[in-house]
Amino acid sequence: MIKNKTRAYEGSEHGGNIYRFADELNLQENKILDFSASINPLGSPISVIKGIKRHLNSISYYPDPDARAFTKAIAKFYNIDPETVVCGNGSTELIYLVVKALKPNKAFIPIPTFSEYERACKLYGTKIIYYNLRETEKFYINPYKFISSIIALGNIDMLFLCNPNNPTGRLLKKTNVLEIAELARLHQFFLVVDEAFIDFVPNESVITEVGKNPYLIVLRSMTKFFALAGLRLGYGVFPLQVLNIIKQYKEPWTVNTLAQKAGILALKDSMYKQKTFRMIAQEKKFMEASLKKLGIQYIPSSTNYFLLRLSNAKRMVNKLKDAGIMVRDCSNFKGLGKNMYIRIAVKSHKDNVHILKELLK
Amino acid sequence: MIKNKTRAYEGSEHGGNIYRFADELNLQENKILDFSASINPLGSPISVIKGIKRHLNSISYYPDPDARAFTKAIAKFYNIDPETVVCGNGSTELIYLVVKALKPNKAFIPIPTFSEYERACKLYGTKIIYYNLRETEKFYINPYKFISSIIALGNIDMLFLCNPNNPTGRLLKKTNVLEIAELARLHQFFLVVDEAFIDFVPNESVITEVGKNPYLIVLRSMTKFFALAGLRLGYGVFPLQVLNIIKQYKEPWTVNTLAQKAGILALKDSMYKQKTFRMIAQEKKFMEASLKKLGIQYIPSSTNYFLLRLSNAKRMVNKLKDAGIMVRDCSNFKGLGKNMYIRIAVKSHKDNVHILKELLK
Repeated sequence: MIKNKTRAYEGSEHGGNIYRFADELNLQENKILDFSASINPLGSPISVIKGIKRHLNSISYYPDPDARAFTKAIAKFYNIDPETVVCGNGSTELIYLVVKALKPNKAFIPIPTFSEYERACKLYGTKIIYYNLRETEKFYINPYKFISSIIALGNIDMLFLCNPNNPTGRLLKKTNVLEIAELARLHQFFLVVDEAFIDFVPNESVITEVGKNPYLIVLRSMTKFFALAGLRLGYGVFPLQVLNIIKQYKEPWTVNTLAQKAGILALKDSMYKQKTFRMIAQEKKFMEASLKKLGIQYIPSSTNYFLLRLSNAKRMVNKLKDAGIMVRDCSNFKGLGKNMYIRIAVKSHKDNVHILKELLK
Repeated sequence: MIKNKTRAYEGSEHGGNIYRFADELNLQENKILDFSASINPLGSPISVIKGIKRHLNSISYYPDPDARAFTKAIAKFYNIDPETVVCGNGSTELIYLVVKALKPNKAFIPIPTFSEYERACKLYGTKIIYYNLRETEKFYINPYKFISSIIALGNIDMLFLCNPNNPTGRLLKKTNVLEIAELARLHQFFLVVDEAFIDFVPNESVITEVGKNPYLIVLRSMTKFFALAGLRLGYGVFPLQVLNIIKQYKEPWTVNTLAQKAGILALKDSMYKQKTFRMIAQEKKFMEASLKKLGIQYIPSSTNYFLLRLSNAKRMVNKLKDAGIMVRDCSNFKGLGKNMYIRIAVKSHKDNVHILKELLK
């Protein structure tokens, strides 16, 4: 009755577990320099912190299970149908939800990528076909080769596309994503575009296209760009045709009251967004120049992290750990060589200078 | 590929949806008198509000996916093994989790009860056998009749026992629950005791017994007694034998940083607990006396709500709604007659006086 081969979740397998790291180093959590989770270095918007501070007494009430105020705000912002927006406990809840609800027999996953697509598929009996992105092509998805592979396969039910891709930072242009979406329509498979990092390149989002294509699903996260990882807030935009089945599988009250409030406030904070764009652009330029100078190979990134190629990733991870710096050892990403890559976030100038010095040591 | 008969979740089917109610009445949410969700009328502990106020900057970090500080605090409080405690997004996440992970073929559910057990079972293909609690017995579970029924059935895989039961408020004594747990061990089915309201009668909890019985699972919630519904915090205590499979199905980061912090603080607040016990005891006495005086039939309750028997529940619900008072129409509880029952929370004296007046009108 209770046999299953999927691995148990381990808290250490993703980036961002400052708690375990702090324990291991016997440090306080706020003494850690966390480059392992790619969170906006500005921290959560002050407007959000202030807003939820005023709102703390509301935690005694149940959250709105439909998160209507938040989903309306999203819909207004993108000029889409509010009925098509479903709020989630981070986008992670929605990754599991699409698999549970739509029950694909076969899913297609380009790798390396975020591991939760694979985990969700394995839990609910979906067969996975992997598409290996090549190091020689710097993990860029060549859309035409990619489309040919899908056509050659013939019968997939779902395709997970993380765009920009985690951990590579590579972006597929909107026009190319829409070509794949047209293929999805033609071949009747669901294209699930995980846009968790698209806020850093907002013009490349396909969120407004969902209403035009019954096979296109877009997942979004407020975790990274708005630095709200601790509150758990994501959303998905679904074609009307699948909404009923998605809602059948949705568990109630997964998104807490403060997260819903925070999301509404964050959306409005255009100053924060502008400041983020400026800072990330500037710091990426600085890091790219510095990495080149240091002779460290990196993958060109469209978002707020870099995948670095090293001769011995593990050694570097441990060296940085001794300096209280946490980075993402990418050895457990399927499709990336073991002990070859680490992922580091783009942080504040001071922090970036600091890690660059440590990388050199 | 996407056929299923389970109903879509509707935000209005449980109590506590003040957002929808406020919309319908064109009122502000804080103008509603919510008797529909059975939340501690003291509101969230001030120690918690203060504590998370100091902690707001932590929302930019991912929560600890293992909620180790919180699970340790729980384990210490109950003197149980911290490894056996799993934190959840309310106990609701854990209800779905046990069904997904343990995949019971047949579940036994005494009704009327909390509807999420049924919903979880239906979603994941578990056949349900209902056990009708009788109005003539005031919905009390007679443990020996109950045990006989289970023995007669022979082959169930899971039994959901909400204790005290929602919406009836009836309690099964600890000794009786343990007798059922012994039967579970003997017949090898999982007894899932949902103790969401047990903090109001803490001596009747079987939480410390889980370590001794590989078929006993206890679910707890911080929602009601500690008035933390909006933050989403629950936990389960699982036998070591099933922990691995439970963790295989657990989705990451479901419990936000502030909820974890709040849980630790709430546990410590013994003043709040004492104050709650005193207030609820006093107000229950007052309400019982008043309901008797008014000639309104109610079910004796071991917790902080009353199930009221009315000649026309719907009419009363609407009358109270016109007065800005929200109560739980129990017509959608399987096993309760339609249009016969409402559930009302025990609130502050002022609020209780208010609803009693309105009930009389």
